[in-house]
Amino acid sequence: MTMSLQAPLRAFATALLLVAAPAPAIAETIEERRQRGDAVIRSLNNGVPQQTLERMRQEFPFLADAAEAYALGDVWSRPGLDSRTRQLAAVAAFAATGQTAFAKIHAGYALNIGVSEEELKEIVYLVTVPAGISRAIAASQAMSELFAERRAAPAKQ
Amino acid sequence: MTMSLQAPLRAFATALLLVAAPAPAIAETIEERRQRGDAVIRSLNNGVPQQTLERMRQEFPFLADAAEAYALGDVWSRPGLDSRTRQLAAVAAFAATGQTAFAKIHAGYALNIGVSEEELKEIVYLVTVPAGISRAIAASQAMSELFAERRAAPAKQ
Amino acid sequence: MTMSLQAPLRAFATALLLVAAPAPAIAETIEERRQRGDAVIRSLNNGVPQQTLERMRQEFPFLADAAEAYALGDVWSRPGLDSRTRQLAAVAAFAATGQTAFAKIHAGYALNIGVSEEELKEIVYLVTVPAGISRAIAASQAMSELFAERRAAPAKQ
Amino acid sequence: MTMSLQAPLRAFATALLLVAAPAPAIAETIEERRQRGDAVIRSLNNGVPQQTLERMRQEFPFLADAAEAYALGDVWSRPGLDSRTRQLAAVAAFAATGQTAFAKIHAGYALNIGVSEEELKEIVYLVTVPAGISRAIAASQAMSELFAERRAAPAKQ
Amino acid sequence: MTMSLQAPLRAFATALLLVAAPAPAIAETIEERRQRGDAVIRSLNNGVPQQTLERMRQEFPFLADAAEAYALGDVWSRPGLDSRTRQLAAVAAFAATGQTAFAKIHAGYALNIGVSEEELKEIVYLVTVPAGISRAIAASQAMSELFAERRAAPAKQ
Amino acid sequence: MTMSLQAPLRAFATALLLVAAPAPAIAETIEERRQRGDAVIRSLNNGVPQQTLERMRQEFPFLADAAEAYALGDVWSRPGLDSRTRQLAAVAAFAATGQTAFAKIHAGYALNIGVSEEELKEIVYLVTVPAGISRAIAASQAMSELFAERRAAPAKQ
Repeated sequence: MTMSLQAPLRAFATALLLVAAPAPAIAETIEERRQRGDAVIRSLNNGVPQQTLERMRQEFPFLADAAEAYALGDVWSRPGLDSRTRQLAAVAAFAATGQTAFAKIHAGYALNIGVSEEELKEIVYLVTVPAGISRAIAASQAMSELFAERRAAPAKQ
Repeated sequence: MTMSLQAPLRAFATALLLVAAPAPAIAETIEERRQRGDAVIRSLNNGVPQQTLERMRQEFPFLADAAEAYALGDVWSRPGLDSRTRQLAAVAAFAATGQTAFAKIHAGYALNIGVSEEELKEIVYLVTVPAGISRAIAASQAMSELFAERRAAPAKQ
Repeated sequence: MTMSLQAPLRAFATALLLVAAPAPAIAETIEERRQRGDAVIRSLNNGVPQQTLERMRQEFPFLADAAEAYALGDVWSRPGLDSRTRQLAAVAAFAATGQTAFAKIHAGYALNIGVSEEELKEIVYLVTVPAGISRAIAASQAMSELFAERRAAPAKQ
Repeated sequence: MTMSLQAPLRAFATALLLVAAPAPAIAETIEERRQRGDAVIRSLNNGVPQQTLERMRQEFPFLADAAEAYALGDVWSRPGLDSRTRQLAAVAAFAATGQTAFAKIHAGYALNIGVSEEELKEIVYLVTVPAGISRAIAASQAMSELFAERRAAPAKQ
Repeated sequence: MTMSLQAPLRAFATALLLVAAPAPAIAETIEERRQRGDAVIRSLNNGVPQQTLERMRQEFPFLADAAEAYALGDVWSRPGLDSRTRQLAAVAAFAATGQTAFAKIHAGYALNIGVSEEELKEIVYLVTVPAGISRAIAASQAMSELFAERRAAPAKQ
Repeated sequence: MTMSLQAPLRAFATALLLVAAPAPAIAETIEERRQRGDAVIRSLNNGVPQQTLERMRQEFPFLADAAEAYALGDVWSRPGLDSRTRQLAAVAAFAATGQTAFAKIHAGYALNIGVSEEELKEIVYLVTVPAGISRAIAASQAMSELFAERRAAPAKQ
C-alpha cells in the first residue's frame, strides 16, 4: 500500500525530471539508480553489459555500485547534456589526466553512439593545450589501437 | 610576382580547408596563423583581445605566439569540431587537471558563444568521475564566481 | 504511518549495516543517503552543517548531492574503516594530489574527532615519498594555518 | 671501544626517540639510517629484502639510499604513526596520484603486517572522492591482482 | 628563382636569429617550421627520422605537425638554451609528471648528443624533490632499460 | 679521541667525494648533511637562510630536516650536475607539475647564481610540450612576478 501511494508520486517526479528538473528524484532508490546506470551502459556499449564493471562486482561490489549507480546512473544519465558532448568531454578529461585506458574505453562508447573518428582526433589535438603534446600523443596511440580494433572486428563491441 | 603566383594556390588551399582538409595549408605563415588566432579569440571574447595574452606578449613573446598562433590559430580554429563542444571539452580538461583559473576563462568563452550555465554545470558534475568530487567542487566555485561576475556586469566580457 | 512502518525496517537495516554488511541496503533512497551523509558531516564538523556544502546546494544541487549522498552518505559512512584512519588517508590523498584546501578541511575534521596534530604531521611527512618534498611543504603550510586557527578559536568550527 | 662508548648513548637516544622525540637523533649516520630502513623493509616484506630496491642499488645507488635511508629509515620508521595507518595512507596517496604499481607494492606490505583485504578495499573506495572513480577502478584492478597472487602463493611474499 | 631570392633573406633572418631574436621570423611558413623540426629530430636521433612521429603522421597528421613544426621546429630549435640543458630539463619534466615513456625517449636523445648516463641519473635523483621518490624510481627503471638497450646495440637508434 | 680518529677518515672521504664519488660518505651524520644543506641554500639564496625553511622548523622539524639534510644536503649538493642545470631542470619539473610557487622560488635561486631571465623563459616555453600551454602560462606569470620583484629590489633576496 505504501508502494501504491508512492508510485504515482514517483511517476510525477519522473515526468518532471524529463521536462526540466536537474536533480534526481527525491525518493530514488539505489536499485532504480543501478537500473538507470545499466540502461546507460547498454546504450553506450552496443546493448551488452560492460566487462570491467561485471568483473569488479565480484571483489569490489561497492565500487561497482559507485560506477553503475553513481557515475552512470546519476551523472551519465542526466538530461542536461547530450551523450555525444558528454563522451567527448570525458575523453578530453581522461586524456588530459593521463588515464589513457579510460580515454580509450570512453572513445569506444563515443564511436558506438555515432561520434566520428575525426571528432575524437580533434579532442586529442585539443588536449595539447591544457595538458601537453606528449599527453595528446599518448592518447592518439590509444585511439589508433581502438580504431584498428574496430576495423578488425567492426560488428563487435 | 611570387605573391601573385602563390595567392591563387593559397586561396585554393583555403577553400579546401573550409570543406574538408584537416591539416593547415602548407604555405601558411606565422602571421596568418596569428591572424586566425586573433579572429578566434575575438569570436570567443566578445570582439576584444584577451588581456592575459596581451600582457604576456611583453615578456614572453614566443609563449604569446604559442597561445595565439598555435593554440588559437592552429588548434582552436580547426573546422572538425564545433566551438561549443570544444569549449565544453576544454573546460572538462582544465577542471580535471586542477587548472581552475583556465577552466573559468574557457567557461567564460563558452558563455560568450551561447553555451548555457546549465551545460557548464553538467561538465563540472561529469568531472567527478575522471578526477574526483573535490576537483569538481573546486571547479564549481570558479564557475560560481564567473556566473556572479556576469550577473554583476552582463554587458562586459 | 508510512514512516512508522518503515522506521523499524530501517532500524533493522542499520543494525545489520553496523554488524557486517559491506554494501548499502538495496532499497536505500537518496533521502536516506543524504540523511546519513548529513549525520557523517555533523560528526566530523562539531555538530554543524558544512558551509561549503550548503553554499554549493544553491547553484550546484546535484554536486551537493554527490558530496552529501555519495561521498559522505555512501563512502564516508562505511563501517569497514574507522573514521580516524579514513581521515588520515584522505588527508594523504588530498596532499599528494596538490589539493591543499581539501587537505586542510579534512585535517580539521580529523582534529574534531580526536586525531592529534602530531599524527597529521606524520601524514604530511609521509607525503614526501609518493609526491615529493614540495607537496609536503605545501600541505604543512595548510596544516600550520589550521593549527593557528584552532588556537585562536579553540571552541569554534 | 668506540662502539662500546657510543652504544649506551645510542640506547639513550633511542629511548628518548620512543618516548617523545619527533626528530631523528642528531648524530645519526647514513649507515644507521640504512640499517633502520632495512629493518623496516624486512618487517613489511616478510623478513626478506625488497627486490626492486636491491636491483636499483646497482645503477642508482644514491636513489636506493634515498629509498632505504630516507623513505624507510627516516620516514617509515617514525614512531608517531602506527604501521597499519601509514600503509593505508600510503596506498591512498599512491592510488590517488595514479601510481598503481606502488599502490600494489604497499598494499602487499599492508597485508603482510595484518591489514585485511577489506580495509584495502575501503581505501580504494575512498579514493573515488579525492581522485575520481576511474583512479579507484585502476587501483582496484591492482588490488585484485595482488589478492589473486596471494591466494596462488600464500606463503610467499 | 623564388628560392634564389628568398635564400639570402632567410640566411639574413637566421643570422639575426642566432644573434638576438627571441621570436621566430614573421614570414615563417609551416613548411619551414617542419623542416627545422626535422633537422632538430635528426640531430637528436642519430640522423634518422623518429619512428613514433612517422607512424602518427598517417592517422593524426595535425598532431604530427604539432610535434614537428611546433614542439621541434618552434620550441626545441630556439637558440636561447643549449641542447643538453633542454634535454635534461625535459627529462625532469616528463619524469616528474609520470610520463616515463617520454622521459625514456628524451633521455635517449640526450645520450645521442653527448649527455652522460651519470647526468641523467642526477636528473632522476633530483625528481625525488618535486615529485616523490616513487616517481624517481619509475624513471630510474625506464633509464635502466634505455642504458641496457644501448649496451646491447650501441650503434643503433 | 673518537673524533680525532674519525676526522682524518672523514677528510679523506670528503676529498674522495669532491673528486668523483657519487654517493654520500658512509659515516655521514645528519648534522653534516644539514650543514651541507645549509651551505647549499646560502649559495642559492645570497648568503642568507631560506625563510620558509626557517618557519617550518618550528612546527615541522622533521620536514625541515627532509628539506635541508635530504633535498639540499643529499640531492642538491651532488657534484655530478652543475648548479645552473639543476636549477633549470627543477624549474621545469615544478612548472610542469603545476607547483608554480616552487617554480618561482627555484627560479629566484637560478637568478641568484647567474642564470639569465632569458634562460628561465626558455624553460617556461619548453614546458608547453610535456605539460601544456596553460601550465607554461601559469609559470610565466610566476616568472613575471619574480622579475618585477627583482627590478623593484635588485639588491635584496
